[in-house]
Amino acid sequence: METKKIELLETYLILYIDHFKVLESLKNPDDSDIVVLDVRNAPKQVKGDQIKGAVPMAAKDIADHLDELNPEKTYVVYDWTGGTTLGKNALLILLTHNFKAFELAGALEGWKGMNLPVEPAK
Amino acid sequence: METKKIELLETYLILYIDHFKVLESLKNPDDSDIVVLDVRNAPKQVKGDQIKGAVPMAAKDIADHLDELNPEKTYVVYDWTGGTTLGKNALLILLTHNFKAFELAGALEGWKGMNLPVEPAK
Amino acid sequence: METKKIELLETYLILYIDHFKVLESLKNPDDSDIVVLDVRNAPKQVKGDQIKGAVPMAAKDIADHLDELNPEKTYVVYDWTGGTTLGKNALLILLTHNFKAFELAGALEGWKGMNLPVEPAK
Repeated sequence: METKKIELLETYLILYIDHFKVLESLKNPDDSDIVVLDVRNAPKQVKGDQIKGAVPMAAKDIADHLDELNPEKTYVVYDWTGGTTLGKNALLILLTHNFKAFELAGALEGWKGMNLPVEPAK
Repeated sequence: METKKIELLETYLILYIDHFKVLESLKNPDDSDIVVLDVRNAPKQVKGDQIKGAVPMAAKDIADHLDELNPEKTYVVYDWTGGTTLGKNALLILLTHNFKAFELAGALEGWKGMNLPVEPAK
Repeated sequence: METKKIELLETYLILYIDHFKVLESLKNPDDSDIVVLDVRNAPKQVKGDQIKGAVPMAAKDIADHLDELNPEKTYVVYDWTGGTTLGKNALLILLTHNFKAFELAGALEGWKGMNLPVEPAK
């Protein structure tokens, strides 16, 4: 049973990327391999703000926009909180189409809780 | 590793049902295949409100009430938030007893965050 | 598919321990097998309060402090909420080093939501 637990944790955790790596990428956005996708299914008035530099791409629409993505980049998706499934839905679509992709650990809630940079939603 | 990640995401996501399908069922509750179970382990004063039409069935009691459930229905369980384990506990009991069951994506927190219909807890 | 779902739920749920068992251990902390670790990566001013009797051990530092842990004890880790990955990171380190360890179901958010005992963060 411990082996199964460890395997599950290893696979689960590798779905995520830490906010440190995303923050690092914000310093030189033009040189960065990382593109942050805001996958919330909400209009910008409802979203209010977003992670600085994020590209809005609703999880419900992502399958129709895969040709706009760059296979050389690493995509980081986030939803409102870590307890929702939208980020994982988007992640599954990206991974099954061979994109490098991760979910942001802690989601937008965690990012804002640490007072990391946001901007008005696009 | 990518294959393992995709397999985990696929299995994890299929545990959940989207609020759209639950909302749809609320339009014609008498004809609906879906029954929403509020599995919070709390008295109704603490719960305050609940998803409209939900049946209260605390996760801690669900194993004793399986004979009240209808094998023809699809059960949708929810807890306060998506970050708790109560919904998954209830779901495991239902699935191991061959009921069709899902956890509500986003849980009560997400439902209320989208201003979907609630009523006083029963 | 149902078998895969059940297997995932079983393995996932066994990662967690319920607040009841932790509460029980607080009654006789000197006799208890359980040690609660607050694995939040934050200074105590930011943490504010913590679960009563918890030992602060930031997830980012835990790998360097394994020699301070007792292999006879059961470690219960918690982070701010259940939607973050810090608890699971700490848990993976503990389990891979053969410690008995669980994540607290509901995390600090759930504990406080039930008005269970807290104290100023250490």
